[in-house]
Amino acid sequence: MAEQGTYVEPGREYTRDTRYIETRITADGRDGYPVEAGRYRLVAARACPWANRSIIVRRLLGLEDAISMGLSGPTHDARSWTFDLDPGGVDPVLGIERLQQAYFARTPDYPRGITVPAIVDIPSGAVVTNNYPQITLDFSTEWTAYHRDGAPDLYPEHLRDEIDEVAGLVYRDVNNGVYRCGFAGSQEAYEKAYDQLFSRIDWLEERLATQRYLVGDTITEADVRLFTTLARFDAVYHGHFKCNRSKLSEMPVLWAYARDLFTTPGFGDTIDFAQIKEHYYVVHRDVNPNGIIPKGPDLAGWLEPHHREQLGGRPFGDGTPPGPVPADEQVPAHATPLH
Amino acid sequence: MAEQGTYVEPGREYTRDTRYIETRITADGRDGYPVEAGRYRLVAARACPWANRSIIVRRLLGLEDAISMGLSGPTHDARSWTFDLDPGGVDPVLGIERLQQAYFARTPDYPRGITVPAIVDIPSGAVVTNNYPQITLDFSTEWTAYHRDGAPDLYPEHLRDEIDEVAGLVYRDVNNGVYRCGFAGSQEAYEKAYDQLFSRIDWLEERLATQRYLVGDTITEADVRLFTTLARFDAVYHGHFKCNRSKLSEMPVLWAYARDLFTTPGFGDTIDFAQIKEHYYVVHRDVNPNGIIPKGPDLAGWLEPHHREQLGGRPFGDGTPPGPVPADEQVPAHATPLH
Repeated sequence: MAEQGTYVEPGREYTRDTRYIETRITADGRDGYPVEAGRYRLVAARACPWANRSIIVRRLLGLEDAISMGLSGPTHDARSWTFDLDPGGVDPVLGIERLQQAYFARTPDYPRGITVPAIVDIPSGAVVTNNYPQITLDFSTEWTAYHRDGAPDLYPEHLRDEIDEVAGLVYRDVNNGVYRCGFAGSQEAYEKAYDQLFSRIDWLEERLATQRYLVGDTITEADVRLFTTLARFDAVYHGHFKCNRSKLSEMPVLWAYARDLFTTPGFGDTIDFAQIKEHYYVVHRDVNPNGIIPKGPDLAGWLEPHHREQLGGRPFGDGTPPGPVPADEQVPAHATPLH
Repeated sequence: MAEQGTYVEPGREYTRDTRYIETRITADGRDGYPVEAGRYRLVAARACPWANRSIIVRRLLGLEDAISMGLSGPTHDARSWTFDLDPGGVDPVLGIERLQQAYFARTPDYPRGITVPAIVDIPSGAVVTNNYPQITLDFSTEWTAYHRDGAPDLYPEHLRDEIDEVAGLVYRDVNNGVYRCGFAGSQEAYEKAYDQLFSRIDWLEERLATQRYLVGDTITEADVRLFTTLARFDAVYHGHFKCNRSKLSEMPVLWAYARDLFTTPGFGDTIDFAQIKEHYYVVHRDVNPNGIIPKGPDLAGWLEPHHREQLGGRPFGDGTPPGPVPADEQVPAHATPLH
């Protein structure tokens, strides 16, 4: 995702614009965009927690061959995420420099935020959807024909109500809650968001003390959604967004839970801490005017034993872990403790 | 202390102006200002680590009756610290609203920073000195006639070389090092300061692993100087100044050392966490433009057992701890875990 221009409005609480392009890519193609291998490109950014979800789910389900991925660099200007990491600054498949161009191909002068993740229809070069909560669910439920052998069921039918409920609370208080702390325009709005965030964190600590995953005994969509916020907590949200009752690393249950997922194939291997820090500290100049990127925190702790196996649980249920990350999608060694 | 105006100069490293008014109050009165009970007023601010040293030493030595104390509020504008905490916004002894007035009484249009701590000659209303490293040493060595019974020797003659050496390294890399991180005008200057800070912290962790205090086996001036920075580390420097390799609470030796001092009479009872946070987050708008003050961190950890007694040491040597804090100098309950 990317909020554009200024982030903090003095005197006001932060309200995320959640109007997305809701077109769906489905097995039956009812919106005009049928599931089809090679037709679509996922545009993501490793920096962004909302895009990170789609990177993780694509990998857990083994959709790499069916849906290619383009990655924007960690920083962007008011106009758009750019493909500055690619040779010549151009996405090699879409042939564009700015993600904005794919939004304009869909709707000239598209008026809302140019956000990642976005799925682009390669033939037309137009964004099909940027509706991130639906994108990952559709990977799980509409793209089944292209799932790898052993792909886990991240959205099991009998648990959907519970997953939706938990994910809803986690979205409101945690995923978006950290932004409501960091972009609060008044002390009062900040404190309200902070209290909600840490109440929910206490709730999560208690819930996860006796069960390995958020819902059921396997990894689900709910875990993916919580994980991408936790991975950024100490690196960014604790300091930059003032979510500082304590670090994640000081919350024993949640920290062990996060480490468990981090060291599970498909999670930690998608996390680029350097890009994450660069994004927030450079882009949000109205929070961090000098644009200096903190050197910390020390990342070594992510690999300490978590002992969560003792709670039981079957990470991939009847499935299997994904294989190694393809060579051209690996996070560079300097940006991860996983090497 | 108080740096005025802007703090971060783009492209440059932060350099503290260390030109102070070096007049001394001595037993022999050689600078025209003899030690004399009731003649001088210490102007401090609980927010400021440099002023905090003088508050601690005055209390450890029992100089409260000899040297009265005025306290500026935590925030100030470009012109000066003010007495906004006092009834009518006026210091009841000096009769001034702004500390600047006492500087101007000494030197009209005094051109440098209006800093705390400052010692004011009450009859003339003029600042005698703001030379904070000398102020605490003079409390120890020149004001002996007014020390309480059982006052500790914070600057023992046979340890002065070692105290000066350790305090010098701690000043350069830690006390001032955190400011060099936070006010760095370039990524390079920041990273240099960060590396120096945490190298020194590693050195301190090692030194303090086997000895209870920094120099000798009793509390000295060196401990006072390190303590006032440690007390602010997690509340301010970790996030606001990006000193974030880890929190103090994640460094086992230094954290236990800090807690040991915090719970020693004369140290923690001078710390007002609310004023500390308000000062940094409100005054440094070029670091924190929205002026929002973090609610965290949780302070309860300061009172956890530190077990440093096992290292031996005699906190006050042949002396005794100071008595309770006078009622009119107590930190309010909401601003401290000590209640």
